[in-house]
Amino acid sequence: MASKAEQRRADLREKLVVAAESRIDRDGAVALRARDLAGDVGCAVGAIYTAYDDLNALIMAVNGRTFQKLGQQVAASVQGAEAEVATQRLILMSNAYLAFAAENTNLWRALFDLKMQAGDRVPEWYVQALRDLFANIARPVAELFPNDTPEELDLMVRALFSAVHGIVLLGLEQRISAVPLDKIKQMIAQILSQIGG
Amino acid sequence: MASKAEQRRADLREKLVVAAESRIDRDGAVALRARDLAGDVGCAVGAIYTAYDDLNALIMAVNGRTFQKLGQQVAASVQGAEAEVATQRLILMSNAYLAFAAENTNLWRALFDLKMQAGDRVPEWYVQALRDLFANIARPVAELFPNDTPEELDLMVRALFSAVHGIVLLGLEQRISAVPLDKIKQMIAQILSQIGG
Repeated sequence: MASKAEQRRADLREKLVVAAESRIDRDGAVALRARDLAGDVGCAVGAIYTAYDDLNALIMAVNGRTFQKLGQQVAASVQGAEAEVATQRLILMSNAYLAFAAENTNLWRALFDLKMQAGDRVPEWYVQALRDLFANIARPVAELFPNDTPEELDLMVRALFSAVHGIVLLGLEQRISAVPLDKIKQMIAQILSQIGG
Repeated sequence: MASKAEQRRADLREKLVVAAESRIDRDGAVALRARDLAGDVGCAVGAIYTAYDDLNALIMAVNGRTFQKLGQQVAASVQGAEAEVATQRLILMSNAYLAFAAENTNLWRALFDLKMQAGDRVPEWYVQALRDLFANIARPVAELFPNDTPEELDLMVRALFSAVHGIVLLGLEQRISAVPLDKIKQMIAQILSQIGG
């Protein structure tokens, strides 16, 4: 059984991750301040560092929740769509990825913010979440390229994820090539419909 | 003829953009400080703001130079390669893009750093540089899809650029799917060899 002190620390961690998620969602990860979080959960600023090593560790905890929701949304997009051809299932997952990024832009951006990770080790749960996401993409890819080696398939899965990520990223930006959501969907379909064709 | 004051201002602008380019190349755009730049060029901190409205304007000036070099490198990669099939020319340009990003990572990242642009208008030279870059990609794309409308071709050019950008971006990152350069090249070829096939 957890001691009272352990329980209090677990409660504080949970409150902080919820508060941080809400703030990142609204203002982005760069705007996160310990003082604001302490106000949100009603603790001293110093107490935050009894629950998390630093703000980066707290952002990584938020990223863990974001990655889980993203993975669920992507997986759900092909549930019941097993009869669709492989290319169509890739498009469904990509559109789910786009929808998640469009609806949770700041939380999604935090997943890819390099500065957060400089010098840090990637946590095991993070690697696992990425592996789960890639496993969903690997199924249709294996159907499209039945003669590829596992190494070729693995690289194709990464390439397709990165390609769709690039289309979503620049499509949602204000500057490089901002376009309406249905145009982003069209770009995804234009590229993916060529794969394995 | 320029007055002496105008000439001094032009000289200061030139010195500052060279100093800023060197610092961004080494440390990234987020690390740029007015105090350091003043030391580099031997002027007072306040004098910087007689030459540029703010540091963002200076970073945009560096981005202009970077975009020009990037465009030249991409265009050069297909000079003398007119006999290659369209897909191969797309791969050559993408590899040139990858090489530029790998050799000038901080300068290249500054081109895409959203924070730099929040609320600012995109300068005309920036839009033009992007248009020139896309024009290079449009030639092979038009050969691959002779029956597409101009709107479809334009969207395909953006989609392909964004897809290759995503592969280069995540490929060069430390965290999401870092892979050696030859693997990034392989991913680019895997995707592009499917286009129009």
